[in-house]
This record gives sequence, C-alpha cells and structure tokens, in this order.
Amino acid sequence: MSKDERVKPSQPGGFNDYGPAPMIARTRMVDTIRRTYELFGFQPLDTPCVEFAEVLLGEGGDTDKEVFRLVSPEEDKELALRFDLTVPLARYVAANTDLLLPFKRYQIGLVFRGEKPQAGRFRQFMQVDADIIGARVGLADAEIIAVTVGAMEALGIERFVVRINDRKVHEGLAEALGIQTRGSLPRGELVNELLRVLDKLDKIGRDGVRAELARKPEHENDRSLKLSAAQIELVDRFLDIAGDNSAKLDQVAGMIRGETGKEGVAELRAILSHLRDLGVNESRVRVDLAVARGLAYYTGPVLETTLSDLPEIGSVASGGRYDDMIGRFHANPIAAVGTSIGLDRLFDALGKLNLVPLVESEVDALVVVFDAALLPRYLNTVGELRRAGISAEVYLGSDSGFKAQMRYGLRKGVKHLVLCGEDEIAKGGVQVKDLAARQQEFVKAEELIAYLQKKKA
Amino acid sequence: MSKDERVKPSQPGGFNDYGPAPMIARTRMVDTIRRTYELFGFQPLDTPCVEFAEVLLGEGGDTDKEVFRLVSPEEDKELALRFDLTVPLARYVAANTDLLLPFKRYQIGLVFRGEKPQAGRFRQFMQVDADIIGARVGLADAEIIAVTVGAMEALGIERFVVRINDRKVHEGLAEALGIQTRGSLPRGELVNELLRVLDKLDKIGRDGVRAELARKPEHENDRSLKLSAAQIELVDRFLDIAGDNSAKLDQVAGMIRGETGKEGVAELRAILSHLRDLGVNESRVRVDLAVARGLAYYTGPVLETTLSDLPEIGSVASGGRYDDMIGRFHANPIAAVGTSIGLDRLFDALGKLNLVPLVESEVDALVVVFDAALLPRYLNTVGELRRAGISAEVYLGSDSGFKAQMRYGLRKGVKHLVLCGEDEIAKGGVQVKDLAARQQEFVKAEELIAYLQKKKA
Repeated sequence: MSKDERVKPSQPGGFNDYGPAPMIARTRMVDTIRRTYELFGFQPLDTPCVEFAEVLLGEGGDTDKEVFRLVSPEEDKELALRFDLTVPLARYVAANTDLLLPFKRYQIGLVFRGEKPQAGRFRQFMQVDADIIGARVGLADAEIIAVTVGAMEALGIERFVVRINDRKVHEGLAEALGIQTRGSLPRGELVNELLRVLDKLDKIGRDGVRAELARKPEHENDRSLKLSAAQIELVDRFLDIAGDNSAKLDQVAGMIRGETGKEGVAELRAILSHLRDLGVNESRVRVDLAVARGLAYYTGPVLETTLSDLPEIGSVASGGRYDDMIGRFHANPIAAVGTSIGLDRLFDALGKLNLVPLVESEVDALVVVFDAALLPRYLNTVGELRRAGISAEVYLGSDSGFKAQMRYGLRKGVKHLVLCGEDEIAKGGVQVKDLAARQQEFVKAEELIAYLQKKKA
Repeated sequence: MSKDERVKPSQPGGFNDYGPAPMIARTRMVDTIRRTYELFGFQPLDTPCVEFAEVLLGEGGDTDKEVFRLVSPEEDKELALRFDLTVPLARYVAANTDLLLPFKRYQIGLVFRGEKPQAGRFRQFMQVDADIIGARVGLADAEIIAVTVGAMEALGIERFVVRINDRKVHEGLAEALGIQTRGSLPRGELVNELLRVLDKLDKIGRDGVRAELARKPEHENDRSLKLSAAQIELVDRFLDIAGDNSAKLDQVAGMIRGETGKEGVAELRAILSHLRDLGVNESRVRVDLAVARGLAYYTGPVLETTLSDLPEIGSVASGGRYDDMIGRFHANPIAAVGTSIGLDRLFDALGKLNLVPLVESEVDALVVVFDAALLPRYLNTVGELRRAGISAEVYLGSDSGFKAQMRYGLRKGVKHLVLCGEDEIAKGGVQVKDLAARQQEFVKAEELIAYLQKKKA
C-alpha cells in the first residue's frame, strides 16, 4: 500500500485500549464481582448497546445526558448508544410483563457518553450493576448495600465505606426549611435544587454550599433558593450531625419535619438493622447526610462508595431506589433499587493504590525450539501439556536463537521454559527453567505434566 | 407519568436481549473459549467499540461493509462502531510499535453491522477471536486451526469439521485457467471474482457455479469471467477432487500451475503435519477446495468451521491469514493469522442441537420467610451461607405466603428451600427441601453449610 493510502492508527479521545496485563487484571475484577452478585442470588441479563433514543431519553428528550446518536439506516426512529444500564433494564422489565418478580438481576456492560473528548474523561466505560426489581423499600435496599460491600471485600479492598442516606430525609429537611412553591417553580424543583447543592459539598466545601443556598434568583425560572441566615444555620446544624449511625438518625429525627422525613429515618433504621442481621461489618456502612446523588430519578435510600485512601476520585459504586422509572414505560410503576460499580474508575484507583497485581500472561510453559529438526517432538509436548490443562506454547517467531526465545518468555511473563536437545532425549527428559526463581532442573518426560501441575497448585 | 408521556418499551430489530437462562449459558460458552485460548498461550486485549471511521474503512472508505456512523461531538473526524475485531487489532499493532512479537492475542467483543433490520440478522453480535501477529505462514496457521478445534471440543461439540484451504491454491487454479488482465480490470480482481464464485458453492450448487463462471461481462468493468467449457471442466475436476487430505493435495498439485499454487499446496501440507504433531484429531480438519472466504484481505491459508448436523447455517468459526492488513497503517507489513468464533450464531445452533442446557439461576438456597418475626434469624442464615460460598437469598416479595415463595423458588430454579419455624428452632435446625429431587429433610443448624456444600460438589 502506498504512503498516500495509509491511515494513521489513531484513536478518538476517551476510548481506551487495554493490553494484556490490564485486561487480565480487569477480567479478574469483573469475574470477582460477578461471583459476588451470583452468591447473593442475582441472575445475569444482557441488553444491547443500542436502543431507540426515545427509550433512553424519554419522550421529551431529557437533556442532562449527552448520548451518542447513530446515523441510522432506519428511517422512522433515532438510535443511540446507552449511557447507563438502568434505563435499558427499566425498558426490559416493562417489555417483559411475565417476568418473575422480585427480579434480582446483574449486568456487565459497556456504556457511552456522547460528550466532546476531554482529558481524563472516559467516553466508553464498563458498569457492573446489580438491581432488585419489584421489592418495596427496606430489605431489598439492605441487600443492595450488602452486595456492594460484598463485592468490594471480595476485590480485596480493605479501606472503603459505603455512605448511605435517604432522599426522604432531605425532603424532611426541606420541610423544616419551609421550602414552598415559588411563582411558576414547583416545590419539587426547589427541593431538587437543595439536593443538587448538598451533593456538591465534597467539591465546593461548606462555605460553597452556604453561598449557593443564599444566592438570590436572577430571573423567574432561576431555582436559586435564597435561604435566610436562620435557614442556612439549620442546614449547617444538619450537616454537623455526628456520631455513630444510630446517634445520627436520632438527631436527624429531631431536626426534620413532616411525615416523609420521618419515613426516611425509619427506612434507614430498618436498613441498618437488616445489615446487622446479614452480618455486614458495621464499619463498612455510614449514614452520611450530605449524600444526595445528582440523578433526579432516585426516590428513597441512596448510596455512594468511597475509597478511604482516595476520597477525591469520588464514588466507585453508587446507586439507590428509583421507584418511578419503570412508570416511564407502562402504567404500573414497579419498585426498583440498584447499585452500579464503575469498573474503569475503580480499576484506575486500585492501580494507584497498588492493589492490582499486573501480569502479562499466565502461560505455564514455553517449549523452546532448540533444534528445528526436533519440532515434531516439541509440538507433541505442547499438545500433551494442553490436554492436561497446562497452558503451553511453542515459540513461533522467525528469530529462532535461544536469546530471542528467552527474551520472549521473560517479556510475556511465561513461568517456565522447557528445553530439549539430543542430550535430554538421550536421558529421557527435558530441562525445565523456572523464569521467576531462575532455577533449572532436569525432569523425566513422563513426569513433566505432574511437575508443572504441582507448581501451578 | 401521564399516558401521553409514556414511551413504548420497544427495541430496534437485530439488537437482542438475553435473559438469565441464555446469559448463563452464553457466559459459560465465552468462559470455555477464553480458557481454551489461554491454554494455547493467547493473551487478552480489549479495544473500544468506537473507532475513527477511516481506521475501519481505509482512506477510500471501503464500501463492502455497512458500518454504523455516530453523530459525533467531534468536528474533525467521523466516528463509527467497529464491524469486526480484526481491523482494530491491526490498528492496535500498528500504533504500539514496541509490542512483543509474535503477539498471540484473544479478544471477546461486540461488533456492529449498520444495515437495515432484517428478520434473523443480528446488527450487534459477539465475536471471540484469537490471532497471531508477527509469525510467518506454517506453524502459526496450525496453531490457529488447533485452537479452533480445541475451543469447539471444549464446548462439548462432537460433530464438527474445520475445513481448510489456501488462497494460493486458488491462485494456482487461476493460473491453470489462464486468467489474465482484461482491459482495465487487473488480473487480481478477476482472481477475486473466481474466489467469490467458488465461495458461493454451498449456496448456489455446482450448476450455479458453472453458470456464474460462464457468464459474459456486460460492460467494461463487469468482472464476469466468461470461462469456456474446457475451463469450466477444469474447475469441475478441481472441485471433484476427493480422498483423504493427503490424497487431495497430491491431485491438486497435479492440476494447478505456477509457483504460488505450489506454495499453497506446500503450506497446507506443512500445516497438516504440524496438526498431527500437536495431536489434533485428524477427523477434525479437512482440506476443502471450495473454501475461499469472501473477505478480500486473506492472503494464504483460510478456515471455516461447519457443524455436521447444521451445515446450512454456515461457518461458526472462520479465519485465515491476512499478511497485508497491518500495512494499511504503517510501512512495515506484519504477518497475521486468526480465527473468529461467532458466538451468537454458535449459541443459536447449539440450542437447536439441544447442546445448551438452560438453567434460570444457580442459587443454592432460598431462605423462606415463614414467620416475619424470625426475619433476623433468616438473615443470619443467609449471611452465613454466603460467607461460606453458598449462593443464598431470602424472599423479598411482598406476597409473603408460602405458595408465592415456593413458586418463586421453582421458577427461578433455586436448588433448595430452607424452612424454619418455631418447631425447627426448638429442634435446633431447619428443614431443607430439594426442589429438583422433591425431597425434604431436617438438618441441624451447625451442619447446614456442610450439607449444602456436599450437595454442590
């Protein structure tokens, strides 16, 4: 091909390759999370990456998500790439009316964000979700929190905390603050604004929150809350609440107003009690009154997961209850609660914390092509090893010198070289070189499989 | 949400959901293929679903692939969804110039075809590929065929055959037929036309092939070959070649012309010899002179895999050597050969052959909520079972009658119900009901874990 016809082998920003070492580590992580979800009784589901845009965005075309739209060969309806696994789950549940409920499903899938490329932003990433459909608030929420804790523990993460709260508690705070419908702005939108500001606490700090809460609206549709000093003081006291989970909830109960708020406190108390009964380590779950979750679709308990050594990266596993979403698709709303582990962010974080061992391969044996005339014998050996479940290969490169083969074995992270020339044949065996231990010993041909199996174990 | 705002939970054609039972089966299949690839020394790689369109299609914009293009927030270059895993691999190899060669990589990934929806056509499907980059023809091709056979055998498929051929053998046939440059049509394009017609043998039969070969060109750029009766007779004799692999190659050698054709025969002989040395069952691999593979990028040995009981569905694992592709991206062409298992087609086929056992879940124990007051105790049990590696759950539905819980357990395919009321507590244990065996027995509390573990084994 001429130089003019050649294409630069480049990639769009935010779309990443994962070579062998990160892929081996990521696959282990996904397998570990999958096993945890299965241990908790979740069943797998797969839905495609492509959905009708109206399914993802709703009739009106929700604008807070940036989706990739496809140039579609269909004429009638626009296609788009999913931005999460939750909306497709809601579509699946609404479409499959004979589904067995409660439905505990997990899903491992790629999601896409149709934004412009920016440094450090993924535009394709993997989510590993577990959701429970058709179970009312309480025990199901505890299960979702427990499986999140279980997955983090199974991944070998020791320093993390799942922070929980309840949207209804914030509703009780809004009630205590006396937030009301204002002009054409419904009360719900102003309560959402309160949640939005509280959710930014980690980023903007307490002073930032105070300033945003005090800000005056500049036009009729501006949701700024214009809270008074006395109101802001109440928010401050709310955020100051300290102590163990039980003590916090006692104080919250005395500060909020209205039935919904009380329900929120009762829900959190019940969830904590269920978690104790399930044997979840109490230090893993903390009531955090600042947790609000930005997404408007949550309706009850919410959760975020922070790595204690990397709080600045934000939550690595988040979720909550979204009892209204399936109602987007059919008349019977169905209760729903879930958790989503962001694999890419978690993988990067565990890398920073040196919690991800990287290996290039797990090949047990490279049979060196020592003497080309003996190739049939080398291939016999490779075939026998594989049939015994031992990962093995023969060197395929054209530079057949021993050095090149040794370098290949070392760079690929092969565990053993198997060497065999006329001398070894005369003695009825092979030399086995352990590349990590830098040791070599003679092994009889008939003992090679047992020898390598023993070293695997 | 009002009825007007509701969205129909529908899906575009060719994009499929997989519920729990098919997903459990598919995941097992993928895991089995993955383990086979690892056993053969292949390393995992992941590349994203989205690439620059020019990378996928080449500078000119290859038109025989229908790709989904994205409405992209980038201004400069068009984005598209990949249609296979091979072109992204070539891009990866070209971009990573320090890659260790030979590179034996496997990849499990979704690919997309941007065609209009048609009955029975997938527009998203999964490919499970293994490729060897940087190894010349011969042993590497044998490895690719061996790993294809290995994966099919590991999947428990008994009746299949990998059919192999070599593009160079067809070149030798073209030479024997005396195919030459014609007007503005280069000889290579006419040889490709010969391959295209031979590739259709399964679909159009021998008469169809004869008719297509005899067809006269209707305009200057028409590639129709207009073969004479004598030429067609030669093609017939070529396709009539029978016998075992060795006998076939002997006859081919006597019929074709030119150095390239001879090389092709020698390549196939060497591959068959390596496969014997690797211990691959000879009945698994058959020289089939009609195998041509439609894709223009193959340059040497090619393979297709047919299920003996479902030949009509076409190949379930295909591949070959494509030594020129990486040259699309940089000046140094790098040798390459690979195989691709089409998971969706294979999954459907194995389903038709009743080779895919379907289970809804693998939950070991559903702890029945027999008495709401005992919920803490039930949760204790669930937590203990999970910590011992036994998949367990407590019923989360609101209809807490025993019948509803029993129905849930049966429909979900749970293996055991664990029942505990005041009587069982008094006796210090639980009733365990095996739903498949329809047997129930009393098990002491301290023996429950061992009891269920023993039944798992």
